[in-house]
Amino acid sequence: MKLSKPQDVLLLGPGPSPVHPRILEAMSQHTLGHLDPDFLSIADQTNTLLRQVFETKNQITFPVSGTGSAGMEAALVNIVEPGDKIVIGINGVFGQRMSDVASRCGAEVVEVNSEWGKPIETEEFEKVMVNHNHVSLIGVVHAETSTGVRQPLEPLVELARKYNALLLVDTVTSLGGLPVSVDDRDLDLVYSGNQKCLGAPPGLAPITFGERAMQKFMNRKTKVQSWYLDLSFLTRYWGQERLYHHTAPINMIYALFEALSIINEEGLSNRFARHDQNSKALIAGLQALGIKTVVAENYRLPSLNAVWIPEGIDDQEVRTRLRQNHMIEIGGGLGPFNGKVWRIGLMGHGSKRENVEKLIKALGEELNTLGHHCSAEEALLESGKIYLD
Amino acid sequence: MKLSKPQDVLLLGPGPSPVHPRILEAMSQHTLGHLDPDFLSIADQTNTLLRQVFETKNQITFPVSGTGSAGMEAALVNIVEPGDKIVIGINGVFGQRMSDVASRCGAEVVEVNSEWGKPIETEEFEKVMVNHNHVSLIGVVHAETSTGVRQPLEPLVELARKYNALLLVDTVTSLGGLPVSVDDRDLDLVYSGNQKCLGAPPGLAPITFGERAMQKFMNRKTKVQSWYLDLSFLTRYWGQERLYHHTAPINMIYALFEALSIINEEGLSNRFARHDQNSKALIAGLQALGIKTVVAENYRLPSLNAVWIPEGIDDQEVRTRLRQNHMIEIGGGLGPFNGKVWRIGLMGHGSKRENVEKLIKALGEELNTLGHHCSAEEALLESGKIYLD
Repeated sequence: MKLSKPQDVLLLGPGPSPVHPRILEAMSQHTLGHLDPDFLSIADQTNTLLRQVFETKNQITFPVSGTGSAGMEAALVNIVEPGDKIVIGINGVFGQRMSDVASRCGAEVVEVNSEWGKPIETEEFEKVMVNHNHVSLIGVVHAETSTGVRQPLEPLVELARKYNALLLVDTVTSLGGLPVSVDDRDLDLVYSGNQKCLGAPPGLAPITFGERAMQKFMNRKTKVQSWYLDLSFLTRYWGQERLYHHTAPINMIYALFEALSIINEEGLSNRFARHDQNSKALIAGLQALGIKTVVAENYRLPSLNAVWIPEGIDDQEVRTRLRQNHMIEIGGGLGPFNGKVWRIGLMGHGSKRENVEKLIKALGEELNTLGHHCSAEEALLESGKIYLD
Repeated sequence: MKLSKPQDVLLLGPGPSPVHPRILEAMSQHTLGHLDPDFLSIADQTNTLLRQVFETKNQITFPVSGTGSAGMEAALVNIVEPGDKIVIGINGVFGQRMSDVASRCGAEVVEVNSEWGKPIETEEFEKVMVNHNHVSLIGVVHAETSTGVRQPLEPLVELARKYNALLLVDTVTSLGGLPVSVDDRDLDLVYSGNQKCLGAPPGLAPITFGERAMQKFMNRKTKVQSWYLDLSFLTRYWGQERLYHHTAPINMIYALFEALSIINEEGLSNRFARHDQNSKALIAGLQALGIKTVVAENYRLPSLNAVWIPEGIDDQEVRTRLRQNHMIEIGGGLGPFNGKVWRIGLMGHGSKRENVEKLIKALGEELNTLGHHCSAEEALLESGKIYLD
């Protein structure tokens, strides 16, 4: 029984995002061996392209062989030792996850809990830093996929430097869609995922370790608790030594290579502008449909748009209708946002005007059917204005 | 810059193995969301097919989102708690790896070290079991990829039952190529990898947990140290609840589905017979070239053939020539076998007469060039006799 051709669902949820046909083609190329010179050359080029999108010169930059959460785990198991005091900012699911992962590494985690849908104030972090000595790391989510909030990073870098702590940043939903700028911002340790703004299928987690992070790693007194994610092995495979550790996921790396090549061809600034414009157009259209945004304008992610579900409208019913009648996937809310929030992704190849308009029309139609009166035509006009600027 | 088309290298090393074109095609299909009903149906079917190839009714059977070594780590982090006493059989790299992973879980590991190239005698395990109380798990590698040894499992099952321990089995290089028979043999916990006899590209690690293993897991007193591999989350995604944990590697699962469908169409017993016959034909040919096998006939893996490099012949030179002049990859030796042993894989789609003959011809030619006199024609005749039986 052959795999039946998956339907052409338009992925406008929180990820995976639509995959460019070039990437799918690259992924289906002949599988080479993980020590084959031609594959190693592709791996090297992939890491060079990764440095470009991270905007870093960090030598230790490579894709972890797992999905985004494996990137989070790879960062923490390598940098945190039992007893380390670390501070994690939590204003959504992924900050919470970071705290959970860190505590499983034996860290003493101090949580900075903050309201969902808003960035965490620097003062909240500062209060905690003042009250705790020897915090080795501050962890924060740049792009909180559960809420659509963009966390400003500069003040946290300042804070980290002031208290001599590392800054760990989750960029799963930002890398390739909005500036991450690892070197310019002086971020110490950053990971992401393939399947959001990079636009490749899920399965790899790009990561980059700065000098301070490597120093902390080199000074470890205990073994890394994960063999699979142990950086001392991984750097020997991804570096010049080419020592076998685990079999790299060859075809996934072809896909990542191609995704990064496409980004390179587009140029980062063009790509960021595209994400920004399409997000603004979507928001303008949704607002015209009578839908309110969760996040204040200054802190909205262009990649992931969180909006309140209109009163009286059933979350699941709308999502099912979008999927069945229009072949569009959008995401529901997680945790306290479950049933209250839709998460609409415009990421990578998916961030384009055509998709913005498809969604506005489809959502307008279904909302009207379900008794929320609105005009998709007007919404499209409002949305279209953004493109005139 | 588009990915340049990888060369069509014939993968006759220790894995990855050659990938059937149907699998590459399946992998390049449209990426669905990880909670899309159509994808979840593919995921369910994949797990049903996985149960068939494991020959088990175990409900908890799914692919771990990482390569084979992530399967090893998933097995151990979930089943081992700090302070657990466990016994690991080591006669190659992968037993050693199992011991390393287990000790990172806080286990008190008792190693049963044994000669490379031979199976471990049951008595060696028994001696250890007699001398240690409360061993909770015996871990063993069914198909040692570093040596080509097949470890007989039945006596170890008996031993495990006698001492009330779990039996953990690494089948990375056996599943889909020779009988694993999880239920018939009463194995408790078994993992594998995509890229060997299953014939899919690397990136997933199928795993199956039997009832005793699940009981041990349910009775844990401590949190699983890996968030990414924590079975309590994974079972909620792969089971009926469909609770989001991490984004499943969608296209890799398409590939695994297709690989398992191909196995289902061929039938396990046909597939095992094919692997067996081609391995015998290869060995007959290599012996006629004056090359000796590492492993005694009764314990040879049909999937991975380890042979001694003829005296005076340089390992790397031959492998480079095979790759450059004949587009064939074979593997070198690891650890004490480095420079002394070649590892020749005939796995999955790669296990066929045509490949056996290609390798015999190519190796015969290069060995003659390098001063090891032999006749490829005679070797092909000897090899061909196997197919007359």
